[in-house]
Amino acid sequence: MPRTSEPGRSVSSRLLEVLFAFEPDQSKLSLADLARKTGLPHATVRRLAMELTDVGALTRQHDGRFTIGLRLWRLGTLAPLTESLRSKAQPFMEDLYTALHQHVQLAVLDGSEAVIIERLSAPRAQDLLSQVGGRLPLHCSGVGKVVLAHGGSDLVDRVLSGGLKRYTPHTLLDPAVLRSELAECRRTGYATVRGELTVGADSIATRVMDAEGRVVAALSVVVRTGSVHHQAALPSLIAAGLGVSRMLGWRPGIKIRGV
Amino acid sequence: MPRTSEPGRSVSSRLLEVLFAFEPDQSKLSLADLARKTGLPHATVRRLAMELTDVGALTRQHDGRFTIGLRLWRLGTLAPLTESLRSKAQPFMEDLYTALHQHVQLAVLDGSEAVIIERLSAPRAQDLLSQVGGRLPLHCSGVGKVVLAHGGSDLVDRVLSGGLKRYTPHTLLDPAVLRSELAECRRTGYATVRGELTVGADSIATRVMDAEGRVVAALSVVVRTGSVHHQAALPSLIAAGLGVSRMLGWRPGIKIRGV
Repeated sequence: MPRTSEPGRSVSSRLLEVLFAFEPDQSKLSLADLARKTGLPHATVRRLAMELTDVGALTRQHDGRFTIGLRLWRLGTLAPLTESLRSKAQPFMEDLYTALHQHVQLAVLDGSEAVIIERLSAPRAQDLLSQVGGRLPLHCSGVGKVVLAHGGSDLVDRVLSGGLKRYTPHTLLDPAVLRSELAECRRTGYATVRGELTVGADSIATRVMDAEGRVVAALSVVVRTGSVHHQAALPSLIAAGLGVSRMLGWRPGIKIRGV
Repeated sequence: MPRTSEPGRSVSSRLLEVLFAFEPDQSKLSLADLARKTGLPHATVRRLAMELTDVGALTRQHDGRFTIGLRLWRLGTLAPLTESLRSKAQPFMEDLYTALHQHVQLAVLDGSEAVIIERLSAPRAQDLLSQVGGRLPLHCSGVGKVVLAHGGSDLVDRVLSGGLKRYTPHTLLDPAVLRSELAECRRTGYATVRGELTVGADSIATRVMDAEGRVVAALSVVVRTGSVHHQAALPSLIAAGLGVSRMLGWRPGIKIRGV
């Protein structure tokens, strides 16, 4: 986060540093935690945390620790392509879950990652990576490959030039192979991942279009390797993706952008 | 929002004013909109909006207007009692929706209002009041009455001393009548609203408890007046509320607080 000698800039960036200190696995923070995570003086952190609490952006618990407040949650629901997409996709995701009994995820592109905005799964499944709000790499997750494939050549160049991180022995690290998979995904409308992000977990993912034919999201099914034949799950997944797209105003005649 | 002569305080509160200028019916704002809504100078608004965009709290659209960014949405998902409660309640809400085919809402207490954190309804139903993130008054909504009844006498005193706003000719304005309804709700576990918030709309609502017996949310069914006999919908609603409570660790032996 930028810090300059301009006092106003510095103060507002400090406020944002306090806010963004909250993370999925660190969502309850004491003043000491906040001071440690932001590197700001204790007195500054206290003043900023109190101010954020006064307006409802943070909430203070009985034990003195802070959490993100409901007012900030409400503000977040105003982000485009979250709540409206979630509610439109939900019935299709439910049917898919009922038909396949596998994890179902809906994600959108956010910078150089995919962010999960809805997920249906067994109550026990709790890994942080794939919770709502969790982030997935573009080059080795099913939803990631789909949004990467349709995100334009600038995005692909950026992801490749940043270097492909290895998550498992199966992660694709060869740019040429990845480019070829992305071209295939644009042609067929779906992408496949075989243990490339997590050993033992496969994913098939398809695209979701809006009324202008933009690919605005990706829908995926995540299965234990070997538990489901991809070819068996694919038709229902693609139909669900098209169903969500229709809810967003897309129709078969509308050209899909970036294809 | 407090403004003092202390420069730091003033700057950070200005940043928050820019953020909270975004509202459900005004979720895309130009710099001119932001300047008008916050009363801040155009140059200040531009600088703050750019800073918020740099960190992903806001997103700038092609037309130059700003929206809440995905990073802020992700931050909001860390608020307690939102995503986890949503995902646990969803199956029960779906079954209730399937059984009754009526709007189903889940809400929590936020200050002196109830905030809707999940909703299932027909795709056409779009009024802002009852969208996810929308707020409902405590004294004349079903979910509001339930969380008010279990929120302690301080909350009831505060709501009553603030004056009861009339929404329809049926809104209860007599503190004694409201207090008596709240006591009845604590005894029975449910509350009823008959056209008190919106003419032609009724609601029945029940409580949701956590493992410590705290009433942490309310679950309601909203029906057109006359379309459903409340007594017919009530058992399934109460069973759903108890089901969600069990998912949160509550068991029949655990005393419900504030009752």
